[in-house]
Amino acid sequence: MGATVQPAVVGATGYTGAELARLLLTHPRVRKPLLLGGTQEGATADPGAAAPESGLASERFSWERVKEAGVDTLFLCTPHEASRALAPEAVSRGYRVVDLSGAWRLKSAANRAVYAFEDADPDAASGLTAASVYGLPELHAQAIADARLVANAGCYATSIILALAPWIQSRLIDLDYGVISDSKSGVSGAGKQPTPRTHFVEVSNNLSTYSVFGHRHTGEVLEQLGLAPGQFQFTPHLLPIPRGILSTIYVRAAAHVGVRELEECLRHFYADKPFVRVFGPARLPEIKFSLNTNYCDIGFAMETDGARVVLVSCLDNLMKGAAGQSVQNMNTMFGWNEREGLQ
Amino acid sequence: MGATVQPAVVGATGYTGAELARLLLTHPRVRKPLLLGGTQEGATADPGAAAPESGLASERFSWERVKEAGVDTLFLCTPHEASRALAPEAVSRGYRVVDLSGAWRLKSAANRAVYAFEDADPDAASGLTAASVYGLPELHAQAIADARLVANAGCYATSIILALAPWIQSRLIDLDYGVISDSKSGVSGAGKQPTPRTHFVEVSNNLSTYSVFGHRHTGEVLEQLGLAPGQFQFTPHLLPIPRGILSTIYVRAAAHVGVRELEECLRHFYADKPFVRVFGPARLPEIKFSLNTNYCDIGFAMETDGARVVLVSCLDNLMKGAAGQSVQNMNTMFGWNEREGLQ
Amino acid sequence: MGATVQPAVVGATGYTGAELARLLLTHPRVRKPLLLGGTQEGATADPGAAAPESGLASERFSWERVKEAGVDTLFLCTPHEASRALAPEAVSRGYRVVDLSGAWRLKSAANRAVYAFEDADPDAASGLTAASVYGLPELHAQAIADARLVANAGCYATSIILALAPWIQSRLIDLDYGVISDSKSGVSGAGKQPTPRTHFVEVSNNLSTYSVFGHRHTGEVLEQLGLAPGQFQFTPHLLPIPRGILSTIYVRAAAHVGVRELEECLRHFYADKPFVRVFGPARLPEIKFSLNTNYCDIGFAMETDGARVVLVSCLDNLMKGAAGQSVQNMNTMFGWNEREGLQ
Amino acid sequence: MGATVQPAVVGATGYTGAELARLLLTHPRVRKPLLLGGTQEGATADPGAAAPESGLASERFSWERVKEAGVDTLFLCTPHEASRALAPEAVSRGYRVVDLSGAWRLKSAANRAVYAFEDADPDAASGLTAASVYGLPELHAQAIADARLVANAGCYATSIILALAPWIQSRLIDLDYGVISDSKSGVSGAGKQPTPRTHFVEVSNNLSTYSVFGHRHTGEVLEQLGLAPGQFQFTPHLLPIPRGILSTIYVRAAAHVGVRELEECLRHFYADKPFVRVFGPARLPEIKFSLNTNYCDIGFAMETDGARVVLVSCLDNLMKGAAGQSVQNMNTMFGWNEREGLQ
Repeated sequence: MGATVQPAVVGATGYTGAELARLLLTHPRVRKPLLLGGTQEGATADPGAAAPESGLASERFSWERVKEAGVDTLFLCTPHEASRALAPEAVSRGYRVVDLSGAWRLKSAANRAVYAFEDADPDAASGLTAASVYGLPELHAQAIADARLVANAGCYATSIILALAPWIQSRLIDLDYGVISDSKSGVSGAGKQPTPRTHFVEVSNNLSTYSVFGHRHTGEVLEQLGLAPGQFQFTPHLLPIPRGILSTIYVRAAAHVGVRELEECLRHFYADKPFVRVFGPARLPEIKFSLNTNYCDIGFAMETDGARVVLVSCLDNLMKGAAGQSVQNMNTMFGWNEREGLQ
Repeated sequence: MGATVQPAVVGATGYTGAELARLLLTHPRVRKPLLLGGTQEGATADPGAAAPESGLASERFSWERVKEAGVDTLFLCTPHEASRALAPEAVSRGYRVVDLSGAWRLKSAANRAVYAFEDADPDAASGLTAASVYGLPELHAQAIADARLVANAGCYATSIILALAPWIQSRLIDLDYGVISDSKSGVSGAGKQPTPRTHFVEVSNNLSTYSVFGHRHTGEVLEQLGLAPGQFQFTPHLLPIPRGILSTIYVRAAAHVGVRELEECLRHFYADKPFVRVFGPARLPEIKFSLNTNYCDIGFAMETDGARVVLVSCLDNLMKGAAGQSVQNMNTMFGWNEREGLQ
Repeated sequence: MGATVQPAVVGATGYTGAELARLLLTHPRVRKPLLLGGTQEGATADPGAAAPESGLASERFSWERVKEAGVDTLFLCTPHEASRALAPEAVSRGYRVVDLSGAWRLKSAANRAVYAFEDADPDAASGLTAASVYGLPELHAQAIADARLVANAGCYATSIILALAPWIQSRLIDLDYGVISDSKSGVSGAGKQPTPRTHFVEVSNNLSTYSVFGHRHTGEVLEQLGLAPGQFQFTPHLLPIPRGILSTIYVRAAAHVGVRELEECLRHFYADKPFVRVFGPARLPEIKFSLNTNYCDIGFAMETDGARVVLVSCLDNLMKGAAGQSVQNMNTMFGWNEREGLQ
Repeated sequence: MGATVQPAVVGATGYTGAELARLLLTHPRVRKPLLLGGTQEGATADPGAAAPESGLASERFSWERVKEAGVDTLFLCTPHEASRALAPEAVSRGYRVVDLSGAWRLKSAANRAVYAFEDADPDAASGLTAASVYGLPELHAQAIADARLVANAGCYATSIILALAPWIQSRLIDLDYGVISDSKSGVSGAGKQPTPRTHFVEVSNNLSTYSVFGHRHTGEVLEQLGLAPGQFQFTPHLLPIPRGILSTIYVRAAAHVGVRELEECLRHFYADKPFVRVFGPARLPEIKFSLNTNYCDIGFAMETDGARVVLVSCLDNLMKGAAGQSVQNMNTMFGWNEREGLQ
């Protein structure tokens, strides 16, 4: 079957946009992507794109250019506020949209308050919020297939939700005790904009926490796992590596639940999900195992005599945490094999 | 007052021993240290020692050499098993000893089982175990001053115990909920011996967990804080940095305990302790703040409406986590200012 | 056309072997590779291979296993001495061989003396040395196509030879002045065996020289470029990164040779060579541009008023410097498109 | 002798200024430094300064504040242009000045053209240029002792000049062949201002060249060593480490000059210079040996049969390359032991 989709990437100059451009360029079912910038046209973070023959310099965004290029699918790698403004227009013009920002992930206005969006047309925004689908194919494949707007899941949120969803759905853990995720991320998660926080000298030889009790991905975890605010807590850390996330998650097993039941639940849940690898009890995932892949790796250890369980979940924040997942979402939207263009 | 102490460092070729040698060389109250090797004589990790004029090449260990050099204070930077064998002999020969291994830290035989020591003279070992003092000057200054054998506290254990001791002693946290420490360490904590786990290619761009539910420092925390095994859990991680530890510690405040009470407790407890810095609520410690110093930095954040608290504790594993602390212990043993040689 | 080649990788557990296994597994023209270990069977450096579903654990080497698996092409990722012994046997058994060690790269006995090989059958070794082909497809494509034994070019040597060959062949530089290559490599070039030199703590925050005036790749450069020993000098450095090589090469242009002529020579020479990218004068290559690719990137700068020229050549030492190049050699041996399996 | 000098640091918020503040705070002969900002008051890069008890927040610069604080010695850690404007005013107000920028290092207008200064009072600037002394105490101790304005030597320039000065003064190398310095620096040399070039993701796992044939330190080397432009060439590289410089320098020995003569020349030249360590032939300096010290480490290797020599020179760019050297200059200006405050 020939390629039938013409994608465009808006915001192709950031780390996520450049990674997505690279993936779309070798995807067997899509035409050469139209790469559009925002405020940084011409620049690009993609080493390949920077090389002499790549011809990948991105163009300035305009709806005319999008129309002229025959685009049918838009990937928004734009800031949250820009996505909040662009997506309604894109949907109304008939494009299918995958938004990689946090603009459309949260259904609850209370959770969404952390973004402080000021919608030009609140009714339209409200309607589109309701119609959009959370872009985590392992949980919402059917809804994604039908969606006009897919809100690509957050990087931290993906690592946490995929680790916990099977056990919570099967009621294998004690939610009264609560869930703690101690998460660590590489620096590309902070974006390409140079800041004191991303300066090499500040990050190297260091580890720091940030957004304690206040990170914006918290709401995604609550909504997707059906947890109350008091049941989940999350501490992000900035690692001195360019990419990769490891979440160390602390839970307690429900009464009479043992190692075998926990492992079988994970294996069963992900049996036909190509991008989640369940690790055996003998070893736990490490960040390097999933770097440059679209995998989320999940493993756990349980106390010998007790109920305490440590879950470890790893992924590449630019792949399964952003660009790779958006391609997986596109594959799901068009009914293709999830693996297309991701191996 | 002139220097009156003649120290020797046994095992001066590892990372801890070399750091200790560096500290003793500039300590105003001690004579030039005798540096003794173990199986790797002649090698040294200390950059200064490696330089042309340092003259620090270490000699082979023997009791004769120790006696001949007029040594009165022995620092053991030897493997656990070697320290378990050397310390009784050293004490019986009249030396004061600071042991930097894990050989003498644990009073409980159950906790000590993780080391699987086979003592040549179980009675003597048992007696010395009872007589030895856990080398954490912020908690045991008086006992250290009188001790023949000080068991320098473990690196992870120091970061965790110092963070928790004030609140536990003042009953400000809910121990029924339990305490979780998610701890991260630089690679020098794994020692100088090259292994697949410390190979640059394996560590860089990575983060991994290890010894989940089974790390040997767990017993130190239990004993020093008076916790039951079910009340404390600890997950170590290997960071891609050469040195530094950050422990992210999860607790719940006791009923009616608020931010102010928690902060005041810490500030009061450490008011006259020069090597613990309590951070205000506005920012949390980062690893780089305490690198190359003997500080343990402690800060915390509390949920706005609730009882959940995140403690962050940082130190340099070769300084406050090992060599620096052993000098602080020596200063305490001899009644000197704790700061001598550590600034 | 279906896959017709059955490859085996001997020494699949090192960094190079694991990278090669990964490439062969997705190569469209070869069957699933037989992965054979040496002394470390079962271990593997490949993250993907380490994952639950990969099934890539390598088997113990034996000629019986090779025969039974229907192998026709052998990749030797073995130590120099092992390759020196294995290759004659492999060729006599009718296999086509790509050797990734330094065992067969040097034609001159004087140059080869740095390896101190003791050949069991000197005549056979001598004959095979003469018959083997230096595995740098940009220079020897025709001979590689006909070869039984291809000696995959060294990583440093590839970066230096590809940068200099065009200008030397066209007599654009002053060889009386000589050529200096100041080369820097990531740590994987030192192999997977843990040593004090590859310990994370020793490498991080550091840069060091090694093998000054004595690196084994020197002979390859001399032989391939037709230089006398006095005309070439090479200083390797160990970089605190896992992979990548950058060679900064100092030459003087011949009389009356200018920037344009130099650039045109490079562009012409590599016009139809897919894995060399010539950079324009506006920017020079950096290590990150070629990481995880089979490209060698080459650029240069020339003094405004003078003859001094700085060439910069970058590649990924595990790809174009080792495993990727061996696949390119295989493609050339079988008359396939050089790009097969390398994009 | 009591402290008699009251220093001020202008621009105490950059990496160099913070390092200098740290050194002055523990210097036994100076009073607590007045720390003044520029455009970033209140911020500070110094971990210690950032800690709760340090009280090191810097104040806004004004001449009134300087006078009021009883300052007699000014350290300028300001941008080149700011130093060019501030220094004449400071000298005319009677302060002794150590300028850490490039503003006053170059005597030749041709060399200084790379800075494109526009002096408000060209005559005064010209006079002060002539009167200022290049701040490299190993070469100019006497002149520094008498100077009103000391132009602290550049970081790269220090590593190159100290390595070459002895041999050039003793005519041991062939200057017709020329001198090449392939130099590599950590990121703090690029300053604290966040830019795309200093972003962690861009620097990590990478090595890149910059300012090829055009770095501003070139003129310092030419002037200090008495070389013609055609005799010296210099390629800076950006290393993925926070601090440290290694220069690999290529020269040819003059006729009949051998290893012994070269080594003796270096040892003799630096016999009474406490901050240059000459390495024996058995090993070459590495960056880590001089980190966090004021040492410049120098070693070399010579071809067995020939005249080619590789010099390796290492230092910490924030210490001997900037702040440490400025303290050494101050010590020299006031006739104190050069080592004061630097050990």
